[in-house]
Amino acid sequence: MTPIKLPSREVFSLNGKDNTVATPLPWYLFVQLYMEEYAADIDSISKAQTRIKPYIHVTPVLTSDTLNTVAGKSLFFKCECFQKGGAFKFRGASNAIFSLHHQQAAKGVVTHSSGNHAAALALAAKLRGIPAYIVIPKNAPKCKVENVRRYGGQIIWSEANMQSREETANKVLHETGAVLVHPYNDGRIISGQGTLSLEFLDQVPQLDTLIVPISGGGLISGVVIGAKSINPAIRVLAAEPKGADDAAQSKASGRIITLAQTNTIADGLRASLGDLTWPIVRDLVDGIITVDDKEIVDAMKFCYEILKVAIEPSGAIGLAAVLSEAFKQNSAWKDSLNIGIVLSGGNVDLGALWESLNT
Amino acid sequence: MTPIKLPSREVFSLNGKDNTVATPLPWYLFVQLYMEEYAADIDSISKAQTRIKPYIHVTPVLTSDTLNTVAGKSLFFKCECFQKGGAFKFRGASNAIFSLHHQQAAKGVVTHSSGNHAAALALAAKLRGIPAYIVIPKNAPKCKVENVRRYGGQIIWSEANMQSREETANKVLHETGAVLVHPYNDGRIISGQGTLSLEFLDQVPQLDTLIVPISGGGLISGVVIGAKSINPAIRVLAAEPKGADDAAQSKASGRIITLAQTNTIADGLRASLGDLTWPIVRDLVDGIITVDDKEIVDAMKFCYEILKVAIEPSGAIGLAAVLSEAFKQNSAWKDSLNIGIVLSGGNVDLGALWESLNT
Repeated sequence: MTPIKLPSREVFSLNGKDNTVATPLPWYLFVQLYMEEYAADIDSISKAQTRIKPYIHVTPVLTSDTLNTVAGKSLFFKCECFQKGGAFKFRGASNAIFSLHHQQAAKGVVTHSSGNHAAALALAAKLRGIPAYIVIPKNAPKCKVENVRRYGGQIIWSEANMQSREETANKVLHETGAVLVHPYNDGRIISGQGTLSLEFLDQVPQLDTLIVPISGGGLISGVVIGAKSINPAIRVLAAEPKGADDAAQSKASGRIITLAQTNTIADGLRASLGDLTWPIVRDLVDGIITVDDKEIVDAMKFCYEILKVAIEPSGAIGLAAVLSEAFKQNSAWKDSLNIGIVLSGGNVDLGALWESLNT
Repeated sequence: MTPIKLPSREVFSLNGKDNTVATPLPWYLFVQLYMEEYAADIDSISKAQTRIKPYIHVTPVLTSDTLNTVAGKSLFFKCECFQKGGAFKFRGASNAIFSLHHQQAAKGVVTHSSGNHAAALALAAKLRGIPAYIVIPKNAPKCKVENVRRYGGQIIWSEANMQSREETANKVLHETGAVLVHPYNDGRIISGQGTLSLEFLDQVPQLDTLIVPISGGGLISGVVIGAKSINPAIRVLAAEPKGADDAAQSKASGRIITLAQTNTIADGLRASLGDLTWPIVRDLVDGIITVDDKEIVDAMKFCYEILKVAIEPSGAIGLAAVLSEAFKQNSAWKDSLNIGIVLSGGNVDLGALWESLNT
């Protein structure tokens, strides 16, 4: 076998001294080394892509001349609401489930989540033929509970507070020996979500900017590592509700801030950063755009009426961000021209719409 | 130049007589000849495809394991609600506009339509830089009027009856010298809509059945000619509201039936067949499935909640048809396994949804 050749060293003289310096590492090696301190890297994301390929949808990218005119930019919408389970969450969940060893897997998985992660985990577990125990607070949206049930998840109810949720999950873990799969603070989840960026940049190579919703940070962590590994110059911005702006506050203060309470229509964006996602968000995400609920609802309206895509409030926040004054007025981002927006999920109760149709 | 060689004639004897018979024509020539009596053929559809390619979206095809389980079939959803203008109508409209001679085009186009054709024609005219005069009845849905306005159409109001619409359109024709582009009873329109089937069968070659909404018959006429030219064995079924079942009645009685009044939530499916679409529907469409408004609303619900696609009632009728007892109980259609469903449009007023989000 040929031994691996390290970068050669060159000797030259500037000032009579013998200046021996290392040749700079190629950028991709730099990126790879740089990222090894994080819970995911381009290698784990590429492996995730291969692992989950048989199970996921390659989601389409939509464009709209009307919205390009409104934004004054070329916008590309990555429709993860069309992903299995109705949200990007299935990428991470299926990566976590299918990377479990056989013996681990047999005992099943458990999570405490009221949202899209729960349904995604139930679906991935069903595909592998293992049990999924889903701890759900009693006040969870009906459609998200129905999704878990549809995919065969075993629902265990808890009270609507974090203490009860965690205690109930621990009880299930103890009784079943199942593996806990956290919704975002988990390298397997981050790597799975990162596959979105490889797929998106393959579909639209000219993207110079990505705008990604941020909550616990699992999606944007995977996306920023994947995207900057392919194109180090790409700008990755987070979109966050003003009523749950813990990530913006954390970036501003240089440490994880958690909020005593949140207040936003975007029920999928109320979580706080974890110790695995925070360093990635801190170091690699180029900025955070916060928007209020009115901006989110206006963006939802555009999604339904112009794009014809049925999304949940959290899913519309990327469009809200690109249309916000906060984005338009930031001179550092003027050169963002080809902007990829992740429409992250579409699970929303539409009761009111159907009532109006039935009258 | 080599002269074109006609099919050779063979001579053989079975019963002592000299039986001179023509060699059978190859099937594609048969199909081509057979179809020449209609307002469109595979040649006009192929030319339309080349003509409109720079302007249209290639719309994605979505699948859902959940809906496959509900239907007991493999369903493929052609999302024409993502077409420019929010409906398949832009295919026909852009074919009509871009096939006009320069001098004709300069005077503009006119149509009397309250629906998706009006917006599509306005948009296509805008792209060619010519005026579009759109006669709209005063009771037209707000979102459809807004679409026409967004695309720069010149709106001329009429009363909400056909006589006033036609009189107003004639007045505009007389004053401007513009060309009338009928929503469906026009070979250019039928050929343009037919491009959908070439695209769909290219994306999903294994389709054995197509289910297409029927109203005036422009879409299904183009689709059935295109699809059967590629695969003569393919089954093409129409989906029609029970409250506007003129096509089903026409097929049953062998002549065009028009209804004194219609009653359905599917506002895009209230038109009657024209003299150009009727012969195609009569001869080539394999059957018509009628569904009631409750079935349409249930299908809409599936589209929003499972597919995450925002459609109008007319757009959901193909899914309603495949889930109906009328389809399931028809033993002649048991062998339909890979079914293509056209989600034809997505222009719907969502006021009630936004009100509920804003409370």
